[in-house]
Amino acid sequence: MADTTVKPVLPSGFRDYAPSDVIPRTEIIAKIRATFERFGFDPLETPGMELKRTLTGDNPDFSMPIYDTRISGKRIVSGDNAGDFDTAMRFDLTVPLARYVAANRDKLVLPFKRYQIGNVWRGEKSQAGRFREFMQFDADIVGTSTPLADAEVIALMVESMRAIDLERFDVRFNNRKILNGLPAYAGFAPDQVNTVLRIIDKLPKIGRDAVLRELGKPTRADSSGEDEEGSDLVEASYGLGMTPVVVGKIEQFLNLCGPTDVLLAECVEMFAGTAVAKEGLAELRTIVDALREMNVPETNWRVDLSVARGLAYYTGPVFETYLSDLPGIGSVFSGGRYDDLVSRFSATNVPATGASVGVDRLFAALSKLDALRTVETLTQVLVTVMDPALTKHCLAITGELRGAGLRTALWLGQETSLRHQLGYASRLEIPVAIVLGGDEAAAGAVTVRNMRDRTQQRIPRSDLVRVAKQLLGC
Amino acid sequence: MADTTVKPVLPSGFRDYAPSDVIPRTEIIAKIRATFERFGFDPLETPGMELKRTLTGDNPDFSMPIYDTRISGKRIVSGDNAGDFDTAMRFDLTVPLARYVAANRDKLVLPFKRYQIGNVWRGEKSQAGRFREFMQFDADIVGTSTPLADAEVIALMVESMRAIDLERFDVRFNNRKILNGLPAYAGFAPDQVNTVLRIIDKLPKIGRDAVLRELGKPTRADSSGEDEEGSDLVEASYGLGMTPVVVGKIEQFLNLCGPTDVLLAECVEMFAGTAVAKEGLAELRTIVDALREMNVPETNWRVDLSVARGLAYYTGPVFETYLSDLPGIGSVFSGGRYDDLVSRFSATNVPATGASVGVDRLFAALSKLDALRTVETLTQVLVTVMDPALTKHCLAITGELRGAGLRTALWLGQETSLRHQLGYASRLEIPVAIVLGGDEAAAGAVTVRNMRDRTQQRIPRSDLVRVAKQLLGC
Repeated sequence: MADTTVKPVLPSGFRDYAPSDVIPRTEIIAKIRATFERFGFDPLETPGMELKRTLTGDNPDFSMPIYDTRISGKRIVSGDNAGDFDTAMRFDLTVPLARYVAANRDKLVLPFKRYQIGNVWRGEKSQAGRFREFMQFDADIVGTSTPLADAEVIALMVESMRAIDLERFDVRFNNRKILNGLPAYAGFAPDQVNTVLRIIDKLPKIGRDAVLRELGKPTRADSSGEDEEGSDLVEASYGLGMTPVVVGKIEQFLNLCGPTDVLLAECVEMFAGTAVAKEGLAELRTIVDALREMNVPETNWRVDLSVARGLAYYTGPVFETYLSDLPGIGSVFSGGRYDDLVSRFSATNVPATGASVGVDRLFAALSKLDALRTVETLTQVLVTVMDPALTKHCLAITGELRGAGLRTALWLGQETSLRHQLGYASRLEIPVAIVLGGDEAAAGAVTVRNMRDRTQQRIPRSDLVRVAKQLLGC
Repeated sequence: MADTTVKPVLPSGFRDYAPSDVIPRTEIIAKIRATFERFGFDPLETPGMELKRTLTGDNPDFSMPIYDTRISGKRIVSGDNAGDFDTAMRFDLTVPLARYVAANRDKLVLPFKRYQIGNVWRGEKSQAGRFREFMQFDADIVGTSTPLADAEVIALMVESMRAIDLERFDVRFNNRKILNGLPAYAGFAPDQVNTVLRIIDKLPKIGRDAVLRELGKPTRADSSGEDEEGSDLVEASYGLGMTPVVVGKIEQFLNLCGPTDVLLAECVEMFAGTAVAKEGLAELRTIVDALREMNVPETNWRVDLSVARGLAYYTGPVFETYLSDLPGIGSVFSGGRYDDLVSRFSATNVPATGASVGVDRLFAALSKLDALRTVETLTQVLVTVMDPALTKHCLAITGELRGAGLRTALWLGQETSLRHQLGYASRLEIPVAIVLGGDEAAAGAVTVRNMRDRTQQRIPRSDLVRVAKQLLGC
């Protein structure tokens, strides 16, 4: 024990989750997990720490701020990567999945459908509502390139959201292959396509006009093609310097909207001369048909040609999920097809598609929508202890209630006052309290108090479990 | 994407958990969690990363090899602890709990009963069965010093083990206060007590004779009091140089055994002159009585005076759990009272007691005992797809089965051969497969195949859900 007191604070960008945070999170996660399992996904767990090379892929331009790790302490073992920094905390669950698939290529039965829930770490600038440790919840299908797999992922996204009692949302999807047809269609250089996508990706945040302005604005003198810090949230001061004709073509593309079949038909016409876009459109057609065959409610999904997704590794269909009542919060469940990622680790490539729940963003949204159950504790019954001489009866009652499956706490504080103990039950919103006085113990009785309406009844001890269950509605 | 291929390997001491590992783990953890909740514990989540000072407590002798962390990457933000090493991964869940309690002292309603499940990281020498990232599952009661709280923890330990269908185990407990009476009783210097406890703690691993020899062996010339690497697993070459009289007294103490009440009575006599030990015995008496009142099966717990626990921070009752059929594996669920830990962070101290499941050790044990359900997947039904023209029917069937709550996968591979698809179901041990040919589709029928006994039946499409549920026994 140290002589000086250490300040009990967390590093910047980290937070605790109190029981009142964890309880509703656990309930929601359980519902999503059950949906993932209903769709045939199985749980995988990879470690929080990986070799740094695994995460950055030897990419000199890797720009995500991640957490390097090294072993310190008096008992450092020499060699065995101790004291080095060749390890780091994972920043997502997708790269570790690709590493896992490559490492287990021989024994893995494909297609492999896995889900994973876990924390990831990113050293991003910490700001309100964005944390450096956050939870991801991914489902991926590995080893198949059929668009039916993408349709399965979209169906999963819709059904997961419905499973947590959301109805006012839509999963919007597009295909990178259509977007890859944009240079040929609109007349700009193919190597600009990723920058164009990054700007289009800001559409829900900054609006269509700002996107079009940014495409046309002059380029920066020292333009490096690299985004400024945080620039995905605001309109940039410099743009791509595109001509009004090119911007007009892109505007025409972004203006396409309407019912799914009309939209697809218009798009087929617009991209008639672009092979890659035509392929992308055919895939969307397959996806749309499959969603209808699976009876996935059409109010909850639609093709949206402005969905681009920022990440470079997407190669086909891409998906996002917006809440109708909170569009500004951004996508709460996103993903896409990434057919090239496993090739980082293996000469034999493996196609893959999947999506990830932004757990913290989803919870922030549910909280704003008042859709979270707020409770302080899971405990259903508090057995009070007023008289040390009666403790043995209180212990027996506690054992009995627990034996009957009721979540029961025995009062363990020093205070013997009933008022204090009922105050404790009240502050934690424990719905039922058991009170036992000397006369009750002598008479083989017990008092059961309904903390919600502050009524109480004296009952025979033998009726305890029955009455408690009745009060709890179970 | 990098040009060169990165080797898909994990750092030394880390491992993946395949679905066949995660599925039984999740089931067991759910049962333990339900037990913790039945005992009135609520879930808390603290981050994986903490300030390093929080973890080491400014202790210059802190010897645990932990993982320091720092932010790296092109977009490092200056200040805000980026690039520094003042953060580290947690090595247990107890120190973060103490930090949390100190930080939330004002709003926390005491006693506070929380459980936490989470990974912890230690840079120990990696060896078979010991990993550098492993899961802990803790339950603690904070803010009360009554031995009834310790009894609650022991009851919780027993009931948790029984909840996962174990019967042949015992929770053994002792009291550090009795052990702290050993110097006065046996006649050695009080500052040797922690070293003596560390040696006694090896008893289940190296046996009584080796423990006694180690107490009597000459001390090392450069004796620093510090254990050698890994010395808790073997008899050390040097000892404490105690006289035969002192060793004899300790032997006499360690030889005490027998039924709980006899043992306690003998112990009361032996320590009649030692105040601290008498206090410890009175607490054990209270705990024993409480366990009996709560009806905790006495076959699953006992007082064991050799239980010492290695960690320095224990101050009162200490607990361990041994499996009768695998004594050599060590304790799978351990803990104790630590009344001083919160004082690292706060002038106002808060007493606490609790225990932690060694999840990986427990699973290794359950696996050895053949007590784990081994499954490759949670999926119950595979809908095969032989003819692309019939895909729409297969999609509809898939949607229907999922709608009925059955965990269903649609075949998504490229192979159209039924043999290949049934082979897939067979390798993953999916119990039911649905087969749809052109004639069946035309006749409004479907074939349901029982993969376990390789029988199949052609049924009307409208009977599908009923028959599938019947085959699955749900």
